[in-house]
Amino acid sequence: MSETKTILGIDPGTIFTGYGVINVIKKTPQLENFGYLDLSKIKDPYEKLKMIFHRTTQLIDEYNVNELAIEAPFFGKNVQSMLKLGRAQGVSIAAALARNVDIFEYAPRKIKVAVTGNGNASKEQVAVFLQNILKFEKIPDKLDATDGLAVAVCHHYQSKVLGGGTYKSWKDFINKNPSRIKKNKQ
Amino acid sequence: MSETKTILGIDPGTIFTGYGVINVIKKTPQLENFGYLDLSKIKDPYEKLKMIFHRTTQLIDEYNVNELAIEAPFFGKNVQSMLKLGRAQGVSIAAALARNVDIFEYAPRKIKVAVTGNGNASKEQVAVFLQNILKFEKIPDKLDATDGLAVAVCHHYQSKVLGGGTYKSWKDFINKNPSRIKKNKQ
Repeated sequence: MSETKTILGIDPGTIFTGYGVINVIKKTPQLENFGYLDLSKIKDPYEKLKMIFHRTTQLIDEYNVNELAIEAPFFGKNVQSMLKLGRAQGVSIAAALARNVDIFEYAPRKIKVAVTGNGNASKEQVAVFLQNILKFEKIPDKLDATDGLAVAVCHHYQSKVLGGGTYKSWKDFINKNPSRIKKNKQ
Repeated sequence: MSETKTILGIDPGTIFTGYGVINVIKKTPQLENFGYLDLSKIKDPYEKLKMIFHRTTQLIDEYNVNELAIEAPFFGKNVQSMLKLGRAQGVSIAAALARNVDIFEYAPRKIKVAVTGNGNASKEQVAVFLQNILKFEKIPDKLDATDGLAVAVCHHYQSKVLGGGTYKSWKDFINKNPSRIKKNKQ
């Protein structure tokens, strides 16, 4: 069985959308690509969504992505911004659905803990930890790129914690690994 | 120039997603199909989104849809429900983006006004007006189907008001029809 998989991490937003692609070979993550879409100057909301959808699709195809990890805040400033965010997430998710790529999501704090050990880490700290893990030369000026990459690395660590397999949730892990659950009650 | 176009109306939601397809021939709308997806018993949120995405894609392909009209409430109960709604809208929008179908959105009140003349009309009243306009035999038990259809009919009327053309917004209409704008100031 091949121990290689490719993860696309994405932090969707209608101003900036960050992304990172890592290739996991024998449990070691290697950087493939990272960057961001600058949507700040695009006014038409559908044009923004179109760019997120097409870039996600393009990355999935270019790197033969097996799993999509998405940053998903559960709280926002207001209902309007959450609707916009939901749409941006929705088009990224649709790109994965169209290619039968498995989808996983992580809250911002969980991503920070996974990468730095600290749920309150700054974007700069996250970038420095990622540089150390993935050995890239220069931290980019725009940290939206490292934000996207952080989601992919978080998902990689999460998969390792869960035994290196692929689980949609803790419940899914339990269902697939009944023997690893310690029962307190008989 | 052909005066025929096919409109898919959709009212996305993670419990029920209603849809309706009309064919507009020489400015007269004809019913092609309407129905709804029952997502109430599906627990996995991605499975729900997958069904919305695939059904929207399927309808676009089956009926050669030219335009997608989407019901888009701008206010919701809370940020959580708006995020879910945004995702459901996002996957419908992505289905249209993937096929280069133009997208238009309408607020619930606007849809009711367009179909019945009354922004406070009940779902039942909307269904009765639609039955009258499109001459279908029986009003379905589930009014999510007529809700989806109402979006398509609203978009058809809106296009007629705007001169039978296709405009993304009032601004777009003005840009494409400068001669039809009465200027108050010289």
